[in-house]
Amino acid sequence: MTKISTRVITKVLLYQQVADDLRDLINQGVYLPGDKLPSLRALSVKRKMSIATIQRALEELEIVGLIEARPKSGYYVCFNNSTDAVIELPNMGMSMTMKPKSVKIHELASQIFHQCGAPDVINMGTSYPSSDFMPTPALQKISNQVIKHHMADIVEVQFSAGNTLLRDVLAKRMNESGCQVSASDVIVTNGCLEALSVCLRAVAKPGATIALESPGFVGSLQLIESLGYKALEIPCHPVTGMSLEALELALEQWQISAVLVVPSYSNPLGSCMPETNRKQLVELLATKDIPLIEDDLLGDLSFDGSRLKPCKAFDKKGMVLYCSSVSKTIASGLRVGWIAPGAYYKEVSYFKTFTNISAPQFSQIVVAQFYNSGKYERHVRQLTAKIAKQVYQIQSLIRQHFPDGTQVSNPQGGCILWVVLSQDIDGHELHLKAIDMGIGIIPGQLSSATNKFDHCIRINCACDPKIDIQSSIKTLAAIATRLLIK
Amino acid sequence: MTKISTRVITKVLLYQQVADDLRDLINQGVYLPGDKLPSLRALSVKRKMSIATIQRALEELEIVGLIEARPKSGYYVCFNNSTDAVIELPNMGMSMTMKPKSVKIHELASQIFHQCGAPDVINMGTSYPSSDFMPTPALQKISNQVIKHHMADIVEVQFSAGNTLLRDVLAKRMNESGCQVSASDVIVTNGCLEALSVCLRAVAKPGATIALESPGFVGSLQLIESLGYKALEIPCHPVTGMSLEALELALEQWQISAVLVVPSYSNPLGSCMPETNRKQLVELLATKDIPLIEDDLLGDLSFDGSRLKPCKAFDKKGMVLYCSSVSKTIASGLRVGWIAPGAYYKEVSYFKTFTNISAPQFSQIVVAQFYNSGKYERHVRQLTAKIAKQVYQIQSLIRQHFPDGTQVSNPQGGCILWVVLSQDIDGHELHLKAIDMGIGIIPGQLSSATNKFDHCIRINCACDPKIDIQSSIKTLAAIATRLLIK
Repeated sequence: MTKISTRVITKVLLYQQVADDLRDLINQGVYLPGDKLPSLRALSVKRKMSIATIQRALEELEIVGLIEARPKSGYYVCFNNSTDAVIELPNMGMSMTMKPKSVKIHELASQIFHQCGAPDVINMGTSYPSSDFMPTPALQKISNQVIKHHMADIVEVQFSAGNTLLRDVLAKRMNESGCQVSASDVIVTNGCLEALSVCLRAVAKPGATIALESPGFVGSLQLIESLGYKALEIPCHPVTGMSLEALELALEQWQISAVLVVPSYSNPLGSCMPETNRKQLVELLATKDIPLIEDDLLGDLSFDGSRLKPCKAFDKKGMVLYCSSVSKTIASGLRVGWIAPGAYYKEVSYFKTFTNISAPQFSQIVVAQFYNSGKYERHVRQLTAKIAKQVYQIQSLIRQHFPDGTQVSNPQGGCILWVVLSQDIDGHELHLKAIDMGIGIIPGQLSSATNKFDHCIRINCACDPKIDIQSSIKTLAAIATRLLIK
Repeated sequence: MTKISTRVITKVLLYQQVADDLRDLINQGVYLPGDKLPSLRALSVKRKMSIATIQRALEELEIVGLIEARPKSGYYVCFNNSTDAVIELPNMGMSMTMKPKSVKIHELASQIFHQCGAPDVINMGTSYPSSDFMPTPALQKISNQVIKHHMADIVEVQFSAGNTLLRDVLAKRMNESGCQVSASDVIVTNGCLEALSVCLRAVAKPGATIALESPGFVGSLQLIESLGYKALEIPCHPVTGMSLEALELALEQWQISAVLVVPSYSNPLGSCMPETNRKQLVELLATKDIPLIEDDLLGDLSFDGSRLKPCKAFDKKGMVLYCSSVSKTIASGLRVGWIAPGAYYKEVSYFKTFTNISAPQFSQIVVAQFYNSGKYERHVRQLTAKIAKQVYQIQSLIRQHFPDGTQVSNPQGGCILWVVLSQDIDGHELHLKAIDMGIGIIPGQLSSATNKFDHCIRINCACDPKIDIQSSIKTLAAIATRLLIK
């Protein structure tokens, strides 16, 4: 018995040593989230240990959530493996300064996006995935077929809420994610910004107050500005999203015409609201008859392949106006978005019609056929794996090279990182110096109508994979360091 | 000498007889506008007269503007040949009731367009040319090439005012019609309605007053309604368009934020403002710093191939916001429109961006390449000839079959006829009874925020050429007759 025990102890030590070594390699970024580890056989040969020992070590790492086994494929580094503390944001609790404000960021935003989009600039500003990530060859094949078989539909304007094929597949997909929506509930738009714009116009008159996350999506803030609304910024938790406590407080204090929320991978924080919070949010607003505009643009882009139920899935009264598009998943240039406006169908349809009658058929049929081809799921898996890899690479580089005290978000989906710098650093100044060095990022000034986030920056990690990411982030870090010393 | 004189007199009588006979055939509609007359030789053989006599007869008709000679082709019936009196409209002079009004036609318009668009209805309501008139095979060929060579552009969203190829050719074409516009002055939109909407938002805040023709375009009235403006309806002359005297009076009485005008083939009257009036209109508004939104959607669709200079051609201060699209000429389903906003470029670009970022590339490149293919001019000639033929056929049928006292417009371009019935007939009632018989037309109720035109109807003559036009118009006439007797 003693002999057996000794042998067992020896084995325990051996597998733990392997596990520890692998953990170190993962923490050092040698193996990045999404990476496949060497095979059992390869590790066994390299370590000169039995396959059983290696197996045990890997199981150990699996139990603590650092790696995961994929059937018939092997072991992979998990995405949600960070042990870093959640970043701290100013006024995360109830804010005494939470009140409706006019938004005036457009002039600055316009300059900054123009600078980021210049031809010689490495664009880590605009939050669109690089076209390298898009399924161009498959779309080209489908487009040829669409031209061959649907030319009559393409040539003649349709006075409808959208192409039937597309509305069918969108409704089917929404049902799969838990929303009870039929094709006739869906209105196709020219992208998600148009969807949000039409929904806002359908539920709120100019001058009205719209609540949204803080920090919030620059596009939504500019939309609020362009439509003459006031923004009421509700603190957003880096992990769980919009603070429901803060929202409840705001609802008591102010007359709010609509709430605009990005439950999955909010921009810029990358937070993902838990389903219980989504349900609670929908129920809270339903009791007060306040419409909820849900921006689910990034809902499919979860790094681990999971898909949370949208708020729309908990909508019993038809008060949720669900918006999404294919701009981050299939092709931003096709400009296909959609709305499931619930009880606001008539109003939304009206404002969509008087925006531009209807969406062009070509894009709609191409998107419908891409979904129906069965290639979408595999494409999105590959897409998110590629984006996640860049997100974690950039996150790791920021942690290594930016000044001490810098905090970086830890999103589980989407393509954005939010970097909180020292209060002494001005994000806009950093942006200007970065542009001088040929790198475009978005300063925190564009994520709020307040100046709470002036020391933050937003980085799009789904940038062109052909650029030198490491050198770009090191350059940004050097600029930040110089600004801190100054 | 006497002998010679007698022979000359005989010849005069002979050619006049031929001329009279041909005039009768044209007036009876045997030869419709745009039709080719039999050749000199054929007429000579049939009439047993010399070619010189026939030639003289045709020259006679040419002098009075009834027919025209086309080099190397023969003689054709002219379009502008009607000797009918100009239709009389209520309050064509200065109207004491001319004042800003809220527009509330959407509910009714929505019902009516829905009824006209039902699958079993012959749609003479919506004012789009039937797809039979569109250059589908040529567009299909071009689309294949666009898919082959421009897929990268199609997939990725462009943060720009439009595709460079398209903006270049649009600017070139506008210069050809007398407008000094460069490619960088052009902003591409998703169709002309979006262009108008964006221009209105760029120049006027909700609650502002917009002046437009009366009777006016239902889409513009609905746009004014959806954006919360007031409409100030300026009497429109059936031939010369918006009354400048009435406009001047209105400008003295009311604060007008913008004037919306359709100088070429206004909808529904089909009037075409002379160039002198266009110049005067631009100058009048320039002195008062009031922007002019010019809807030139139908500018290319003149029946005789002439093309008047747009108001934009007379714009020295950049106060004209020129709007157009390819919906009536190339393909309504491509949803390509554009704006040359002059001094309002920045504001227009802003509202376009926050409508939907930018127009899809596919449609833009296809349209650019169709223009550049050199096929456009020939296509438009054929298109207008076909539409004009249907316009004159329907005009002739209305004159023959509608109750005495019915007046019908006599447009020289576009695709719309405006029918003024007895004051005892209600246009909406006629519409409802026509729908029961499977025919869709638009009642005058939708052409004004007043009830001045309730006894009028609008007919789209560019309807499907495969329908039985004669029987449809006879049915409408029978309904009108019954309503009159009742």
